[in-house]
This record gives sequence, C-alpha cells and structure tokens, in this order.
Amino acid sequence: MLNTIMSPSVLSQLSIHSRHGRVCVSPCFSLQQRNNSTSPKIKVDLDSSTGVAVLRMQSPPVNSLSLDFLTEFCINLEKLEMDRSCRGLIITSTLSKVFSAGLDIMEMYGKSPERCGEFWKAVQEMWLKLYGSNMATIAAINGSSPAGGCLMSIGCDYRIMADNPRYSIGLNETQLGIVAPFWFKDTLVNTVGNRAAELSLELGLLYSAPDALKIGLVDQLVPEDQVLSTAQDTMSKWLAVPDHARQITKSMMRKQTIDKLLSNREADITNFVSFITKDSIQRSLRMYLEMLKSRKA
Amino acid sequence: MLNTIMSPSVLSQLSIHSRHGRVCVSPCFSLQQRNNSTSPKIKVDLDSSTGVAVLRMQSPPVNSLSLDFLTEFCINLEKLEMDRSCRGLIITSTLSKVFSAGLDIMEMYGKSPERCGEFWKAVQEMWLKLYGSNMATIAAINGSSPAGGCLMSIGCDYRIMADNPRYSIGLNETQLGIVAPFWFKDTLVNTVGNRAAELSLELGLLYSAPDALKIGLVDQLVPEDQVLSTAQDTMSKWLAVPDHARQITKSMMRKQTIDKLLSNREADITNFVSFITKDSIQRSLRMYLEMLKSRKA
Amino acid sequence: MLNTIMSPSVLSQLSIHSRHGRVCVSPCFSLQQRNNSTSPKIKVDLDSSTGVAVLRMQSPPVNSLSLDFLTEFCINLEKLEMDRSCRGLIITSTLSKVFSAGLDIMEMYGKSPERCGEFWKAVQEMWLKLYGSNMATIAAINGSSPAGGCLMSIGCDYRIMADNPRYSIGLNETQLGIVAPFWFKDTLVNTVGNRAAELSLELGLLYSAPDALKIGLVDQLVPEDQVLSTAQDTMSKWLAVPDHARQITKSMMRKQTIDKLLSNREADITNFVSFITKDSIQRSLRMYLEMLKSRKA
Repeated sequence: MLNTIMSPSVLSQLSIHSRHGRVCVSPCFSLQQRNNSTSPKIKVDLDSSTGVAVLRMQSPPVNSLSLDFLTEFCINLEKLEMDRSCRGLIITSTLSKVFSAGLDIMEMYGKSPERCGEFWKAVQEMWLKLYGSNMATIAAINGSSPAGGCLMSIGCDYRIMADNPRYSIGLNETQLGIVAPFWFKDTLVNTVGNRAAELSLELGLLYSAPDALKIGLVDQLVPEDQVLSTAQDTMSKWLAVPDHARQITKSMMRKQTIDKLLSNREADITNFVSFITKDSIQRSLRMYLEMLKSRKA
Repeated sequence: MLNTIMSPSVLSQLSIHSRHGRVCVSPCFSLQQRNNSTSPKIKVDLDSSTGVAVLRMQSPPVNSLSLDFLTEFCINLEKLEMDRSCRGLIITSTLSKVFSAGLDIMEMYGKSPERCGEFWKAVQEMWLKLYGSNMATIAAINGSSPAGGCLMSIGCDYRIMADNPRYSIGLNETQLGIVAPFWFKDTLVNTVGNRAAELSLELGLLYSAPDALKIGLVDQLVPEDQVLSTAQDTMSKWLAVPDHARQITKSMMRKQTIDKLLSNREADITNFVSFITKDSIQRSLRMYLEMLKSRKA
Repeated sequence: MLNTIMSPSVLSQLSIHSRHGRVCVSPCFSLQQRNNSTSPKIKVDLDSSTGVAVLRMQSPPVNSLSLDFLTEFCINLEKLEMDRSCRGLIITSTLSKVFSAGLDIMEMYGKSPERCGEFWKAVQEMWLKLYGSNMATIAAINGSSPAGGCLMSIGCDYRIMADNPRYSIGLNETQLGIVAPFWFKDTLVNTVGNRAAELSLELGLLYSAPDALKIGLVDQLVPEDQVLSTAQDTMSKWLAVPDHARQITKSMMRKQTIDKLLSNREADITNFVSFITKDSIQRSLRMYLEMLKSRKA
C-alpha cells in the first residue's frame, strides 16, 4: 500500500515556495535541528479536579515526529490511559505557528532497515493509541498541521483550530511524491467523506483553516488565543456524557478501521521499509535535506 | 454491541433540565401513563384514489414505543405492505409537540428476560419492516422525535419536520448512559455520513429542527401546520416514479444494512436482554422512573 | 441487480415535458439519427508539450453511447493510456447543449441477446477504463449529461460544468422504469455520499448545474465559454502532482469499487441481457421510440 517517489520537480517547487516568503513549515517531512539534550519533547499537565490532561508538544522548531518524540508521546498517552482519574486529553503545541510538521525526515535517511521499521512501528503505535483511546480527545490546533500532524489531529475526537488563514492542515504526502498509507486514508475518509478525501489525497492538498472547516477536516475555528480555553470548555461537554457509553460508542464507530491496521501491521511495516530504503528514494531524501538546509542558510 | 450504564449524574441533569422549563419530552426512554383501554394506539387512513396511507400515532402522552404499540404498528405496516392498492405511507402523530418519545422504559423495568427479549424483537421488527418497506415512506415529523422516534424517522425514505426550534430529533442514547446498537448506528451513518454520526452518537446529541436540517438528519422544514400537506405533495412526486424501479433501487441501497441485522438478530436480542436485566441497570431504571414521576408531580 | 420496467405513464410524462418546451435531451436513453458514414465519432488532440489530450465527442445529435461510439471511445482511451507522453485527459463535447445523452436505445431494441451482451460489455469497459485510468481525467461538461453521460462524468477525477441552469446531470434511470446497476450506484455514492445517492437514485433525479454543484455531483461551475479553458488550467494543477503518487493514491481510493464489477462482470451482463430482451421491455422500448419519433416530427 505504501509507496513513495520523491520527484526533483516537487523539491524545486518547495524551494520556490520558500523564496516567495510563505510561512514555511516544511510540509510533510520535517528536519529538526538535532538536539542532544534529554529535555522532554512533551509536557503533560493533568488537572485532577476536572480529569482533563493537557499534552503540550514542545520540540522546536516544528514538533517533528521523530522516533524519540513518538516514543515519548506514546508513553505519556499510555500513562494517561491507565490513570483512572484522567478522562479527557487535549493535545496542543507550545510552539508559535506550528502544531506539528509531521514525520521527521532524518528518521528515514541513511538509517538501517531495522531502525526504519522501528520508526514506522512507532508511527502506527501513535495512531492506534490515539484513534482508539478511551479518553475523550481534542486537538487544540494552534498552528499548521501538515501530514503526520494532520494524522494526529484526525486521530482525536474533536478538532479546534486557530482561525488563521496562514495555518494549514492536510495529508499532503502526494505533493512530495509519496503516498499516504491505507490507514491514513481510512481515517481521512471517516472524517471528511469519500469524495473530499479522494480529492484531498490525489492532489496532496493543504487546506487553510477556513477551508479545512468547510470540508469538515476541523470542527471549529476560534481566535488563536482562545484555542486552548475553547478546548477546555468543549471537553467539559464531552465529559458530561457517561464515559462507558461514550467509549463503547467510539469503539463501535472506529473498531473496523483500527482492526484493519492491526491485521496488516507487519505487512505495512515491510512495505514502508522496502520503499524507504531504496537507493532512488534515499537520493531524493538527500536532495530534499540539502534543499531544506540551504533554505535555512 | 449493546451496553448500557445509567449514571446518576445524568439523571440529575435531566431533572435540572425540567426545572428550567424546557419542553420536556423525556428523552430516549419514556414513561407512559398506563392505559388499560384497548383503544387503538395507531390509526390508519388509506386513500384508495391516491394509494397513500396516513398512519397516525395516537398514544398519549408521548407515543412511547411499548410492546403493544410496536405490535400494533407492525401489524398495520404488514397489512399496508400486502395491500396492492397502497403505494405510499406517511407516518405522523396526533399528539401536540411530540412525534414519538422512543422506547417505553416500562418494557425494560422489572420484566422477565423472556418479556424483554420479546420487546426487543418487536423493536427490531419495526425497523426491519420500515427500512425495507416496498412502499414509499415519508415521516411527517410534527414534534420532537428522540431516540426510538428518531430511528423510526430515519427508517423512512424522506423526512419533513415542523420548523420549530423547540422540537428536537436525534439518537441521544449515550446521554442516558446507554449505547445505540449497531443497526441504529448504521442507519444514521447511511443518513448523515460517518463523521456527523460519530459526533452525534458519542455525545448523544439532540438536534433542533434547524440543526437537524443542516446535518441532513431531516430533508425539509415547513411550518407546523403544513407538515402533513407537504408530505402529501411530496408523496405524489415519489409515486410518479415507477414502483418497481424505485423498489429495486431502494433494496440495492439498503439491503446490506438490513442483512447485517438479519444475520445477527438473535445475538442482538441476547445482548440486549443480558444487559437490561442486570441489577445495576435495573437500579438505574428505578431511579430514572422515580425522577420522571417526581417531575410530573 | 439490473432490472427494468418501462411504464407507459412515465413515457407520457416525457412527451408532456417536451410539449412544454423544455430543452429536450432525451433523458436516459437516446435515439440517434442513424449515420452510416464511418466518420469518427470522437476526435482526440494530444498536446505533446503539456501531455494533455482533449477528447471531443462529436456524434450528433446527442453523443449517444452506441456500441460503435463506445468502441471508438475505448480504443482512444487505451491508446492514450499506453502513450507515455500523455498524462492528462479532458473529455468534452463538440455539440451544442449536450455533453452526452447516455446509452443509445437502438442498441437495446430488437437486438439479439448476443448483441445486447456485446453492448453491455462495452458500457462496462468504458467505465472500467475511465474510473481506473492512470491519467488525470477531467470532464468538461458543456451541456446536459443524463444517465450514461453522468456515469462518464463521475468516472473522471474532476468535473467542471457550464454554469447554465438549463443543463442537467444525473442518473435518472428510475424515472424511465429501469434501475442503475450496482456499479453506477457505487460510483455515485463515492462521489456524493450515501444519502444524496439514495435520494437521487430512488427518484431518478436530474440536477440543474447549480443543484449538481450543491450536492457535489460536479466540482465547479464556470461560464459556458470557459469550460474547456478552465479544464486546461485545472489540469496543470493535477499534473504538478507526481504521477506515480497520484496514480497509487487513485488506485487506493477506487480499487475496491472496480474489483466489485470485475468479479461480477459476467453476471452483470447476464442480468442485463435477460432483462432487456423480455417481451414486456421490448414493447416498452418500442413505445418509447415511437414517442421520441413523434416528438421530432
């Protein structure tokens, strides 16, 4: 299912975009400045009076989903899931202008097949834990959220986005010559319907916040400084519903989609690894990395 | 699939609502004043010149779906289905402010497993007969229509609702700590799409008539005194289509959803019975009944 | 799956419509003036600088989908599909007011079962080739497009229609007493969702261009003289996406629907032939033909 081709023409397109001064969250794959510190990439605050945890992604510059990041994310999610005092989870970013820029390209470049497989398994794990969570989950999307960032958002129960047309969200993999795997696609179809998902995935569209609202990719837009507080207010409505009934209903809605990945998990990893370790793809990744570096300079 | 927990917090919520003076159709489960008369709960008028039957639900105070009501409903539906002179069916209510308040709570409280199973089989039968009817079916929704009333509405081919924001419709089971079974869910997904159904079922949302129109839960709003006449006009358009072609098309659209219940019918009954006869659920039902009674006083 | 009944009441309805002066593209089935010339019914221009082919349907009066037309269409499609220099396909009509009026009734009247089967196989082939094409495909719908013309349109990746309320589009088979087969239905559901498809197919609705936009049956309306140029502009956006990624994504979205016909192809043909060769249907077709002829006179 997963296949990728990085085309040089797309890479040059990206660099043209940056020359024209767009807010430039590297779409789809992102390059983090390596940070050898062991400072946590994620901060969690659980309010035991409300039962609501706020998970803040704080890994500059763009909350790239590296293996370390995903591991930390999943450990935190699991802790909250096991904590009976936690009923609701709000996910947001501490960074300016970006929620998450998606999968970290450095996890796919020059790495062994074993390491690539480990990385992809962590991407799967993030989605499985989030889409199937027993907690009520709200994405407080206070910045751009392409590719993996979009996947994280549509893995939640509800999406509130900053009402800023410069922020965008979408599964734009195709624009970079790669293909969103079937479970990205299934989650998008479940959210916006078949036709909007088809158009969106074939063209690799990034939607501005207002356009994302129009197609139902997000549920609500609010002024940027009210994203978190609105998420808190909304969460209290979700928690007014008896947990058990909400959880069984959520499972009834999502189980089939989750089971599809669970029964194809190894094949999905094998596909990813055999693709990403191809010489042609590695060459494309190198070109892409060099482009990103030159853009920074 | 079906599981229920009644939480005291929800019950107190409901009583707070009634204190604040909302039009109070007991949502989801309703409590009928027992009526030992054998007067029919349903009145059917078939106009042999047009081939259109109007089925009026006339079981005060809120057209609760009791076993007696459902049995009468199904017998009438079956008669019309067999009557070759009847091509179209309009379902409406003679009561002020309410179409149907849904399943009768008294059928689930203090009853033997056998009786509970008989009741649930009748609920299934009502939906199977309606969703799969060869007649063109229009719901003329002249009042609120929560839970089972909503199921009856979305079982029809077309929904016309009174344009009154005080009337609401929706599958609000989750609000009461119970879960709509898979075939309620499937019917809702077929009507409003996956995402609106997910949001609606997880939160147990009741939509005001205008909101119901927005998400496609009803097809048309008209002034309250024109609900039935508009249904008659609309029916004439449906009957302009050759019956045979319309019937085969309807079956093509709905067969898969119907077959899913048909092949899981016994398991669905077993699930319901084992759930509803639990001590904890029976205790919750008693509390709910006492709350409804005190509200009347 | 496929079944048809032509009812005289519908036929007389049609003739009433024409008396009232509506632009009258024979809906659903069309009657071509027989043209014994071997002049091509289709003209293809491939711009090798852009990689975009424009396929013009030029079979007056209404681009009926006859066996000859469909064969020519499929041969052209196959040539372009094999031509590595061709990446995008725009389908439009040279005729005034009509894109295509759908399947040619003459292919179904008084023909042998073998010939009917050959015809239906060609209809299947047209859809299979178009819906599964590796090219980016855009329908430039510059006129009415009922039944088979609508199927051709929704087989493309994107639909641009002339902003003229007198032009209509839809799968209106039911109005004529016949039933769209399951793969017409599946394609429509994939495009407009389950509920809009259900309503549309049960009533055999033809949508004016503005209404078609509202339900998502077409993607964009533009002034009539800009349909083709807008299609060209739009195509350049589609071709900016790397072909390989777009193709794999398209296949991921459509494969299941295509496979369903592929594994039921012979049964679908058998159904069609046994239906269309029935005496009652042949009588209805003759009445329909006579009505169309008298309308011309």
